[in-house]
Amino acid sequence: MLDVEAALASAQAAVGEIPADVATRIADACTLADIDVAAVAASTERSGVPVIELVEQLRRAVGDDAAACVHRGATSQDIVDTAAMILACRAATIAATRLDDASTSVDRLAGDDDTPMIGRTLGQYAVPTTLAAVTARWRSGLVEAAAALRELAGSLPVQLGGPVGDGASYGPRVDEITAGVAARLRLVVPARPWSTMRTPIARIAGAWALVATVVGDVATQLLALMASDVGELGERADGAGGSSSMAHKRNPVAAISARAAAMQLPGLIATLLHAAGGHDFERAAGAWHAEWPALNALLHTGGTAVDWLATSVDRIDVDRERMAANVARAEAERQR
Amino acid sequence: MLDVEAALASAQAAVGEIPADVATRIADACTLADIDVAAVAASTERSGVPVIELVEQLRRAVGDDAAACVHRGATSQDIVDTAAMILACRAATIAATRLDDASTSVDRLAGDDDTPMIGRTLGQYAVPTTLAAVTARWRSGLVEAAAALRELAGSLPVQLGGPVGDGASYGPRVDEITAGVAARLRLVVPARPWSTMRTPIARIAGAWALVATVVGDVATQLLALMASDVGELGERADGAGGSSSMAHKRNPVAAISARAAAMQLPGLIATLLHAAGGHDFERAAGAWHAEWPALNALLHTGGTAVDWLATSVDRIDVDRERMAANVARAEAERQR
Amino acid sequence: MLDVEAALASAQAAVGEIPADVATRIADACTLADIDVAAVAASTERSGVPVIELVEQLRRAVGDDAAACVHRGATSQDIVDTAAMILACRAATIAATRLDDASTSVDRLAGDDDTPMIGRTLGQYAVPTTLAAVTARWRSGLVEAAAALRELAGSLPVQLGGPVGDGASYGPRVDEITAGVAARLRLVVPARPWSTMRTPIARIAGAWALVATVVGDVATQLLALMASDVGELGERADGAGGSSSMAHKRNPVAAISARAAAMQLPGLIATLLHAAGGHDFERAAGAWHAEWPALNALLHTGGTAVDWLATSVDRIDVDRERMAANVARAEAERQR
Amino acid sequence: MLDVEAALASAQAAVGEIPADVATRIADACTLADIDVAAVAASTERSGVPVIELVEQLRRAVGDDAAACVHRGATSQDIVDTAAMILACRAATIAATRLDDASTSVDRLAGDDDTPMIGRTLGQYAVPTTLAAVTARWRSGLVEAAAALRELAGSLPVQLGGPVGDGASYGPRVDEITAGVAARLRLVVPARPWSTMRTPIARIAGAWALVATVVGDVATQLLALMASDVGELGERADGAGGSSSMAHKRNPVAAISARAAAMQLPGLIATLLHAAGGHDFERAAGAWHAEWPALNALLHTGGTAVDWLATSVDRIDVDRERMAANVARAEAERQR
Repeated sequence: MLDVEAALASAQAAVGEIPADVATRIADACTLADIDVAAVAASTERSGVPVIELVEQLRRAVGDDAAACVHRGATSQDIVDTAAMILACRAATIAATRLDDASTSVDRLAGDDDTPMIGRTLGQYAVPTTLAAVTARWRSGLVEAAAALRELAGSLPVQLGGPVGDGASYGPRVDEITAGVAARLRLVVPARPWSTMRTPIARIAGAWALVATVVGDVATQLLALMASDVGELGERADGAGGSSSMAHKRNPVAAISARAAAMQLPGLIATLLHAAGGHDFERAAGAWHAEWPALNALLHTGGTAVDWLATSVDRIDVDRERMAANVARAEAERQR
Repeated sequence: MLDVEAALASAQAAVGEIPADVATRIADACTLADIDVAAVAASTERSGVPVIELVEQLRRAVGDDAAACVHRGATSQDIVDTAAMILACRAATIAATRLDDASTSVDRLAGDDDTPMIGRTLGQYAVPTTLAAVTARWRSGLVEAAAALRELAGSLPVQLGGPVGDGASYGPRVDEITAGVAARLRLVVPARPWSTMRTPIARIAGAWALVATVVGDVATQLLALMASDVGELGERADGAGGSSSMAHKRNPVAAISARAAAMQLPGLIATLLHAAGGHDFERAAGAWHAEWPALNALLHTGGTAVDWLATSVDRIDVDRERMAANVARAEAERQR
Repeated sequence: MLDVEAALASAQAAVGEIPADVATRIADACTLADIDVAAVAASTERSGVPVIELVEQLRRAVGDDAAACVHRGATSQDIVDTAAMILACRAATIAATRLDDASTSVDRLAGDDDTPMIGRTLGQYAVPTTLAAVTARWRSGLVEAAAALRELAGSLPVQLGGPVGDGASYGPRVDEITAGVAARLRLVVPARPWSTMRTPIARIAGAWALVATVVGDVATQLLALMASDVGELGERADGAGGSSSMAHKRNPVAAISARAAAMQLPGLIATLLHAAGGHDFERAAGAWHAEWPALNALLHTGGTAVDWLATSVDRIDVDRERMAANVARAEAERQR
Repeated sequence: MLDVEAALASAQAAVGEIPADVATRIADACTLADIDVAAVAASTERSGVPVIELVEQLRRAVGDDAAACVHRGATSQDIVDTAAMILACRAATIAATRLDDASTSVDRLAGDDDTPMIGRTLGQYAVPTTLAAVTARWRSGLVEAAAALRELAGSLPVQLGGPVGDGASYGPRVDEITAGVAARLRLVVPARPWSTMRTPIARIAGAWALVATVVGDVATQLLALMASDVGELGERADGAGGSSSMAHKRNPVAAISARAAAMQLPGLIATLLHAAGGHDFERAAGAWHAEWPALNALLHTGGTAVDWLATSVDRIDVDRERMAANVARAEAERQR
């Protein structure tokens, strides 16, 4: 939110709406270390938004002469929504990098190894395939999810709508100011303010839907292949978990954690979409606020899912002996 | 499914894997009128998939000499998944056209009318905005959702994976066959078979997430403006509903129906994603089957939501007198 | 809905509000075979509710002198909501009976057989347990879910609120009439009309939440034990499915179908709760209508899940040889 | 978790399985202040469960001679699941009390005031009802939700299953030990260990489904009546929020916060049910872990929703003048 206030002042200075030195003073004031966060939290409980107290602190910091230049033309939602886009952009970028890590680890697993591996459909032995085919499948999903996150990160818009979402409060140079804020924050300029037309939220949901699917599928398949009865893969000891009751056990902790995190995402996406599709008038009474915890949790848990998956595939060992034994076992069953 | 079997035979004939005249006979047999649908339904209950009986009927129809060329190299999932993509493509295309209709109607509502309209935030009177600003907001959402559906329709892949999803059963010319099937069905060639890496399902969910959000927001805002206490918009009599107990009432049936349909979508998307992210091994035991009803309902209900919204905005009348009265009322409250 | 109109007339006759013979004529008219269902559907599209045309048809059927006694004091929502409770009651009762069937089949599987079976935690071999312990676990869930459905079926309320949900339109004897309708339809009398306080919908969701959990858990565990790599259970040939590409396969169709159906329920429950918790004023503009498809799908798909599960456990065979082999295998691994 | 370990030791001492003084030493060690929580967190990341390190610390604390009596017969899941039930019980009890507060405030709003208030259905003016009828409706929901939470709090079970969920590890006196632990923790004795038959989780979801519905409905209706265009209710200044851009505004912060929190619950319930209905074998690989964040968030956000609602109804003022004006306005429209 501090970054947004600073970028807004800077963009307004660039078009001559506020003095350049005031914009610099505002930027200097926008430092988290100088903010009384507890006061912001207390004010949020009273006013329903974190921005009012934040702006008051900034105005006190820059002094009376410059106070009117802080948050000029803006409304709370502009600051909160744009800040959310910054976070969504960062989360997507970090997660894309970890998905790249996972792709690299997956590549290492098989290379072009075409050792036969029994295929299983509906849980039943089918015909042989290869580990390379399996890992290529995982890789294609990881690459597609990373690309979707990067496309998202490059398409998230600023929000400069003012009190009733039509941008009028920013004056006649609103388009230039919007472009200036977008450039400073590495966000894009939207077709219109989206205060109550929440397509950016839906796009975030859509990109993480891909992540949920890919992490879910890879983790599910890793766990299936690591089960004792299958035994073709295993997570190495550097991370694998013990048991409080059975000393001989080795648990696939990273894959389990990835799967558990991925399972949170569809519900969070549904909540986010219910909120995003229920905005009334020019600022929603509840639907907007309902987006906050769901978006927070989606970015946090989505990132956790990706991180655990990258950890898991990095720990995987292949048991080729067991792979061969299972192919033979399937063949024997088929003969019967 | 018949289209897929016909396209597969045709593509295999084009690369010389089956005789051209056999492919023509198969295409001729792939006519819904000739299929015993009840037998297909009964077999689906026994076998869990609709393809086995369908293929048997096709094989009987083309005769013993050609029977082996029907469904050659294919597995049930190839047919079901590719057929699902055809349906998803059609549904997206139809819905995009209706969203265009809605955009046109919305444009007609205000044009560049800048009559003041009171803005409302958190349900409370704020400052005036204009009807043109409100309809421009709706239009931008409708245009973005239509574009997302069209992008989806142009990106859905065929599925030719064979029994264990590695494409091996189609022989060495699998890439050409895949390209041929894709071209015939106006689908695209995926990076890899996606039998248990369900990114196309997640992409469908993502595009309809945008539709859910836009239809939900526009319908919510229409209903808010049509409420008796606001009264700035109304659905015209040609469609508006009566009441079984109160003869004087006029109900905004189309907007209500649009909103009710849009409210189904987040839950269906969550179900679809839970299923799509839980595929084990080379064909999922349950997660794949769980996609079917959710995908069906998503396409059907999503289309319904769009259709009702287009109907609603086509029926809208603006009460400019009431708009002015509400602006005055808000101003009076503000003075107090 | 016909049952509700008939019960209402009968209850009103019993307190002397309408003539007894008119109530009989209304009851006679409330016969589905005499209703023009297509006209009801067409009217629903116009008016947003199925009741208006239905009442008109009933009024025509009973003649001018009795017409005013049809639907007396009632509003569309009274009829639709009460009819929904009748359906919810029937669905719960039928599903409870099938859960009993499943319990019986599960009992037959193991009896008090304490043959060792290897326990698996986090997919890894743990220590031995017994088949009897596993089936007792399944049974306890099935019994608890059946009890929850029966408790639900015995607690669903009628709805007699009239146009604005306060019951006033039914006159001073509204409590007696409500009790009369409840008795005739085997529903209960609510504390208050619940037109926009949707606790009965939440209670339905809650009972089916138990069903979703139990069917999901049993089906998941059946499928795990039927996987080729485990092989301790199998669905018998009378129902098991073939494969369109692999003749040697036997697929656990019933368990797969049960699991796929159970996976639809959480999303439907979420949709239902989103709708049920968003009712505005005295009749919701959209949230009420949004309950209809979700409730319909919940009852239908929930029933399907239960039915397939009962079918699956009835088809199960135990492979005790394989159970013993897996115990030995786990023991061998442990020694290493 | 410390309470569970202490209760287990105490119950085992009561049946003579461990010395009474050792149980006392264990109970003394089970003090949060003495636990190295950071070490527990670090171990959880390695092992996937918080119990292993906790038990090690307790064993060190009680000394070598008593170490074997700590966590005797238990598995991590017993401790985690039972601890979750303690939390679920506390959360339900606290929330029920706040729902009582809300009922009391609602009662105060209207008493038996039968001043006419215009009823609104589908957003349209219908016929008059009374404020007393509206508040009675809210009260009935609040009372029913509180009762459901109290019933839940009185029915949550301990979990003593041991490594493979059959209770065998606790020895022949497992039933007495289970009863003893239940009594000490004010939980109930389940029919069977529920390690992978998650009906208690479904019951928690079901009770909070009622809360989600009631809080959602009351908050939605409060917000509708507080909208400027309606203006019949308002939140008093002691809590109402300002605006960062419009000084004249008064926002219904508590009702908005209640509604936003209630909107999180259906998605969390769906996630919890997806997890609860996907437990494989004797301890689930992921589905169990997926319950944790969803359950935590459900209890926390559910409690928040209830608390904000109680705050809102405590702040409500009624504008009877406006109520009368709206009745008159509706009557005037009707005459037209």
